[in-house]
Amino acid sequence: MKELKGTAGDLYAEIRDLPIVSPHGHTEPAWFAEDAPFPDPATLLIVPDHYVFRMLYSQGVRLEELGVGVPEAARDPRAIFQRFAQHWDLFLGTPSRWWMEYVLTQTIGCDMPLGPETADAIYDQITEWLQRDETRPRALYDRFGIEVLATTDSALDDLRHHRTIRESQWEGRVIPTFRPDGLLDATRPEWQAELDRLGEITGEDTKDFKGFLDAIRKRRRAFRDMGATATDHAVEVLQTLWLDNLEALYAKLRAGQGSAEEAASFTGHMLTEMAQMSVEDGMVMQLHAGSRRNTNADVMARFGRDKGADIPVRSDFVRGLEPLLNRVGNTPNLTLILFTLDETTYARELAPMAGHWPCLRIGPPWWFHDSAAGIARYFDQVVETAGYWNLAGFNDDTRAFLSIPARHDLWRRATALHLAGQIEKGLFGRGDARMLAEELAVGLARKSYKLG
Amino acid sequence: MKELKGTAGDLYAEIRDLPIVSPHGHTEPAWFAEDAPFPDPATLLIVPDHYVFRMLYSQGVRLEELGVGVPEAARDPRAIFQRFAQHWDLFLGTPSRWWMEYVLTQTIGCDMPLGPETADAIYDQITEWLQRDETRPRALYDRFGIEVLATTDSALDDLRHHRTIRESQWEGRVIPTFRPDGLLDATRPEWQAELDRLGEITGEDTKDFKGFLDAIRKRRRAFRDMGATATDHAVEVLQTLWLDNLEALYAKLRAGQGSAEEAASFTGHMLTEMAQMSVEDGMVMQLHAGSRRNTNADVMARFGRDKGADIPVRSDFVRGLEPLLNRVGNTPNLTLILFTLDETTYARELAPMAGHWPCLRIGPPWWFHDSAAGIARYFDQVVETAGYWNLAGFNDDTRAFLSIPARHDLWRRATALHLAGQIEKGLFGRGDARMLAEELAVGLARKSYKLG
Amino acid sequence: MKELKGTAGDLYAEIRDLPIVSPHGHTEPAWFAEDAPFPDPATLLIVPDHYVFRMLYSQGVRLEELGVGVPEAARDPRAIFQRFAQHWDLFLGTPSRWWMEYVLTQTIGCDMPLGPETADAIYDQITEWLQRDETRPRALYDRFGIEVLATTDSALDDLRHHRTIRESQWEGRVIPTFRPDGLLDATRPEWQAELDRLGEITGEDTKDFKGFLDAIRKRRRAFRDMGATATDHAVEVLQTLWLDNLEALYAKLRAGQGSAEEAASFTGHMLTEMAQMSVEDGMVMQLHAGSRRNTNADVMARFGRDKGADIPVRSDFVRGLEPLLNRVGNTPNLTLILFTLDETTYARELAPMAGHWPCLRIGPPWWFHDSAAGIARYFDQVVETAGYWNLAGFNDDTRAFLSIPARHDLWRRATALHLAGQIEKGLFGRGDARMLAEELAVGLARKSYKLG
Repeated sequence: MKELKGTAGDLYAEIRDLPIVSPHGHTEPAWFAEDAPFPDPATLLIVPDHYVFRMLYSQGVRLEELGVGVPEAARDPRAIFQRFAQHWDLFLGTPSRWWMEYVLTQTIGCDMPLGPETADAIYDQITEWLQRDETRPRALYDRFGIEVLATTDSALDDLRHHRTIRESQWEGRVIPTFRPDGLLDATRPEWQAELDRLGEITGEDTKDFKGFLDAIRKRRRAFRDMGATATDHAVEVLQTLWLDNLEALYAKLRAGQGSAEEAASFTGHMLTEMAQMSVEDGMVMQLHAGSRRNTNADVMARFGRDKGADIPVRSDFVRGLEPLLNRVGNTPNLTLILFTLDETTYARELAPMAGHWPCLRIGPPWWFHDSAAGIARYFDQVVETAGYWNLAGFNDDTRAFLSIPARHDLWRRATALHLAGQIEKGLFGRGDARMLAEELAVGLARKSYKLG
Repeated sequence: MKELKGTAGDLYAEIRDLPIVSPHGHTEPAWFAEDAPFPDPATLLIVPDHYVFRMLYSQGVRLEELGVGVPEAARDPRAIFQRFAQHWDLFLGTPSRWWMEYVLTQTIGCDMPLGPETADAIYDQITEWLQRDETRPRALYDRFGIEVLATTDSALDDLRHHRTIRESQWEGRVIPTFRPDGLLDATRPEWQAELDRLGEITGEDTKDFKGFLDAIRKRRRAFRDMGATATDHAVEVLQTLWLDNLEALYAKLRAGQGSAEEAASFTGHMLTEMAQMSVEDGMVMQLHAGSRRNTNADVMARFGRDKGADIPVRSDFVRGLEPLLNRVGNTPNLTLILFTLDETTYARELAPMAGHWPCLRIGPPWWFHDSAAGIARYFDQVVETAGYWNLAGFNDDTRAFLSIPARHDLWRRATALHLAGQIEKGLFGRGDARMLAEELAVGLARKSYKLG
Repeated sequence: MKELKGTAGDLYAEIRDLPIVSPHGHTEPAWFAEDAPFPDPATLLIVPDHYVFRMLYSQGVRLEELGVGVPEAARDPRAIFQRFAQHWDLFLGTPSRWWMEYVLTQTIGCDMPLGPETADAIYDQITEWLQRDETRPRALYDRFGIEVLATTDSALDDLRHHRTIRESQWEGRVIPTFRPDGLLDATRPEWQAELDRLGEITGEDTKDFKGFLDAIRKRRRAFRDMGATATDHAVEVLQTLWLDNLEALYAKLRAGQGSAEEAASFTGHMLTEMAQMSVEDGMVMQLHAGSRRNTNADVMARFGRDKGADIPVRSDFVRGLEPLLNRVGNTPNLTLILFTLDETTYARELAPMAGHWPCLRIGPPWWFHDSAAGIARYFDQVVETAGYWNLAGFNDDTRAFLSIPARHDLWRRATALHLAGQIEKGLFGRGDARMLAEELAVGLARKSYKLG
């Protein structure tokens, strides 16, 4: 890790060791409920990380060779790790390389540079490290200085792992996030069955639109009871609507007779309903727009979802959110955090919108843009119009637990560099910069997600 | 204000005190006609500035608390100013903060930093300052070193304030700009009445398309007689057309029977007519594309237009302007200045188009992009393909009279920084940079707007 | 030329004199077949260069005054060169100026700065230079250190110049590229006749779809026999499809009865066929998307194609390529190189796609973006997600033979600056940077185009 010099170095030093607030991510609650050791290095660092295996796949490595789609028992983790190390050059210039180097050197304490020749020795070192008590999930949570960690959970999840965590003696704060995407997408083959199941879980009649809404309200309540403060919603094309007389449309879809267009209208309407429920119950609403999922049909058929073939598309937040915002956007207690994969929306749409609507906050650079240059572009394009207080702080958004400190560290470094640049340009002094550095590191995330 | 060092500092020093050429903006001609003192600090600096109150609104301050929509007599200007000062941190990193600091320190001569504790004292100091003769509109115009200042005026405006200015002994050059948007938009409820009124003013029969065009020609003439050199046109979605047999469509719309689509076609056709009239009469045509107006229906209903809820949308200048350009774009004496809120069009569309069509000039960074980083992105993305001579210089485009020197100063600083960077990269030497600095500060604006 | 300092200077020094690999461009094979001296300076440097004359046209110089559309015998080359020199300021800040200065100073050895006063003397100097044996095409090819130079040729081209080159004693490697755009666009008036001609050339019955495909296969074979390793395809709007039963659609189009929409479907399907043929025969497929051609109807009518009025439009690579990629994108031996004029697709679409699909490589910054700032934006937006190994190296893509060393030099300087910045940010060390510098200068181009 390169040492930051000058003002940036000073600002970074002040925030480097602040607690980690992680209000959105994809770690497994089971890890913290069961607190079992992580398995081998490949299963920990490579097999589940679509940032990593997509790059190797793009250069001709077969996914099976990386253990993807191979049962854990049938994998050769050492061979997988070696294969990864052989292709380590592919990651030059990428945040994945930066995070992995951080994990290896700062977290695991490895002082050999990774490469084909050192792969075996490093594999052995990680294996040894994973056998220590201090590398179990709860111990790592504590060692990483995590203040709160939100997972992302299906609306139908029974939250038993979260219950286990809460009922344990452990003081870590691991909380769920309510993600009802499946319930709102009537084009999914499983939709009917899942709505039946929703009815069973909640005791509501989900054949009826009002019963459906009440069932969702109950699930939101159940999530809040487990500590949740937020919901999460993902759509490829952002469209919100407000339709009257939803009952008929709902009944038609529930009878399996709606068109794709009607299903899209239903989803658009339901996003507005979700915002209204957030006004009712105070849950922060997150909206991740613009990822076209599973674009590689063959990979999807053979390996399933989340295999590196999700590709961003253009988004239109202005027209897409107008119906929702005109229904609830002026409501003071609503917080709606917007995430984009289309950086052209930073300056054109998100900053002007967040600089007007009381409910809006701009989420941090997401996914491919959670990187040194991505963060620099984000600040460059967002701050002048939205200011700092309409930002939602940082999310690590990761499935890779070990990468959490690495990702927060990269954000903190990039934040320090940005703020030092602002001082250099004469926009404000060191006092304001220090205050903003702390807000960007932890304060804004706590406030935006009501985690104070 | 931070001192610019090195080459940038040298270049800035040479252009800092050049006259201000302000060919597009929204100041009130009545100020210069009547030359009355500006009222209190809040009414001067906060209440009318949508850059300022949108940001406070986005963080939960009600617009009424800022005097918006409140009759002047019913406002408490000191309380408004205090509220603004309490939220001064919201503007960290924004050009509004930079401009306001410039106004307070450079223009008003205030040496206390703004904040909740100093708000009262600063309010008193501005109040005292506003009572001096030297702070009346005409005196400030002179003190600011303004060479020419264009207002923006409805096509139906009687231009009496402009007449008063011209007939006065004062030598300031305040000129109108012809903005016929209302006349070209048949979807507006007021359209019929305004066209009737246009007929009355001009003595033309505006029931007839030819009479309508002749009435517009007469109004353009009347504006030119008051010194106007330019027209201005704003559209959300850029569409131009050339339709034959407009008479029938016009008659239908005039009879209140056209569809929204027909009204849009009429607007698209009329933009081309406006360009043709510019070929006839030499008026420079300005086109501001891509602002979706009044997106917050509740704020619109309660407070009216221009309340911070105008949000940019994507633009397509290539296909949108093709019909107009293929009709008049090769005409040497036409100047069409394009403004965008969609920065993706800088390198992709505007620079290549301006680097080909003889009539086109690229307007300066507009609205949200009139900022240090916005200007840097503009130069970065425009110059390599369009060069410098296809740029239209700077516009301050402001309603906030006091911000004019601040905005030109920020542009001149950013220009000096850009040109110093070009020297550093070896693209040209200091002699060329000095020449370009002066062109960007004043020369290109004079030439583009025929204000020489 | 400004000297690069520090790390960038060191990296540049190591790659400056590497051979030139030019896998895509528009030089004339006749030059190398006939090896005749280039004519006068204007015909060499100005008349054919649309980068140059578009800029003068944009500032009111008539194309005829620059010799465009004027028979060579009727031109006054000295007057053209003087006119260009008078407007030399127009090019300040543009890559055209940088390239031209490189050509004048580095290639021709002129030590006077260009301007109206020096135009005559420089004209004379170039004229003298052009009379030397060492400035004939083959000698310049050798002097420039070109390792391989690809031209771009119609699918119907008889390749006789390429044959002459191959049969000569000269050891230069000038190879054709198969560009079948005309054959795939059924909306062109010449389409029927060209397909008849394709049938004659190949002995296949192009009235029949299978015969048409076989004829294309034979032409690809003929190009490979002359050394071609790649095909090239250009579309304004990127759409690919896979349709069953093409025979009927083809027959309808061949009978002149298809609609514009059917013709577009045919083109979209044929792009997928071309990719499939690349899987069969190993030819690298290039796709240049997003240029709207000949947008100035008057200039097109009077002067023809390629006269500076081609303007970029938005592209959608994700949805546009999905059908093609889902048919052949996982095939290991396919290489599909994508070029964009819409920089918003760098980070949003191209980098994530190239970071997943094994067949994809991202072409270098194209056309308006082949510039210092354009290259910097490209690296900034592409590398973090795609890495370096999914890039296709550099293309000069030029008709201006003399500009080839200049363009490669600018790329190598910009590459050195980028890599020095990466070292400065701590992303990797000098060893990796040196390796990447060489890959970006020559290695990646050789590999991507199978030119090793």
